[in-house]
Amino acid sequence: MPKRGTLPDKIDRFEPKERRGLIVVITGYGKGKTTSALGMAVRACGHGMKVCIIQFMKGDLYAGEWDGIRKMNCDIELHTTGKGFCGIRGNPYPWAEHRDNAQDAVGLVRGKMASGKFDVMILDEINNALKIKLVDLDQVLGILNEKPPLMHLVLTGRDAHPRVIELADTVSEIREIKHAYRQGIEPQPGIDY
Amino acid sequence: MPKRGTLPDKIDRFEPKERRGLIVVITGYGKGKTTSALGMAVRACGHGMKVCIIQFMKGDLYAGEWDGIRKMNCDIELHTTGKGFCGIRGNPYPWAEHRDNAQDAVGLVRGKMASGKFDVMILDEINNALKIKLVDLDQVLGILNEKPPLMHLVLTGRDAHPRVIELADTVSEIREIKHAYRQGIEPQPGIDY
Repeated sequence: MPKRGTLPDKIDRFEPKERRGLIVVITGYGKGKTTSALGMAVRACGHGMKVCIIQFMKGDLYAGEWDGIRKMNCDIELHTTGKGFCGIRGNPYPWAEHRDNAQDAVGLVRGKMASGKFDVMILDEINNALKIKLVDLDQVLGILNEKPPLMHLVLTGRDAHPRVIELADTVSEIREIKHAYRQGIEPQPGIDY
Repeated sequence: MPKRGTLPDKIDRFEPKERRGLIVVITGYGKGKTTSALGMAVRACGHGMKVCIIQFMKGDLYAGEWDGIRKMNCDIELHTTGKGFCGIRGNPYPWAEHRDNAQDAVGLVRGKMASGKFDVMILDEINNALKIKLVDLDQVLGILNEKPPLMHLVLTGRDAHPRVIELADTVSEIREIKHAYRQGIEPQPGIDY
């Protein structure tokens, strides 16, 4: 591996007495939810763990992470199942089509979880999908229940359901203090997509 | 590139009318600051952008992102300059040594910025370093002033300084709703480090 940058000469390693598969929720209206999940994928990759990312809402608008993930020399799968953000201006698909897609995605999640192959599963924007009823609460609770004990499950998106928050181990709410788009600055590659 | 996962058949690409180098601050006490910055690195990598990450506080305790970043087939540098979290129980280094390290890191930042080589620069935990006076406000403001106009600059860490927030384009505060460690669950690889 090429030397890029610098690391300490001496490195200590922490190992928890007990390995646990955590449920992590990243919610709120500020910037940083999907990127935080992607960063956990980078960490997991560093540990040699196997990662599956299923994006519920992202659709046909290019996102840098698609190629970023492909450039990672890791055991990582990315499935983009949506048709873009349902209800967002300009999105041409009817609700029923978004719902069908999200329902397929739930089936994909269950299959991938049941395979027992993954150490980390990331369900990107599933909180929004639940909020707008593209998936049902029972389905999400079913996923949380079926989670293999050692698999980490990360759920992102605005408006996380209170029941999901209740069942999670770690929950962060990202508040927007400022956002460039409010100053009329359009989304920028590498940061916003 | 191996096919891993699924993407939409047809992909649209957004391009802002004007490219801007943003200042992004990710602060607050909840989980997700460093990982959010790492996720932006994944996005930038997808866009073929050049990334430099300088970690101010992380030291000799292994973090998964070190190997994760190395496994990315991208133009990305990672410098871990610190000696661990200053003031954290068990950290054996005197404040003056932390300060010296952070001062070296400021020099590194300026040199890397002046090279004009990078599209994205991430200063991980620099907010904490400023808060505990390992670096000075004037130094951080100097970095913000010297930033090349098209380079994105991401500053993470608790307790972001009000002046830094004022100068930033996008600021997120990550609030802790819950954290596994409060239930006595030790940090888990792939999620917490």
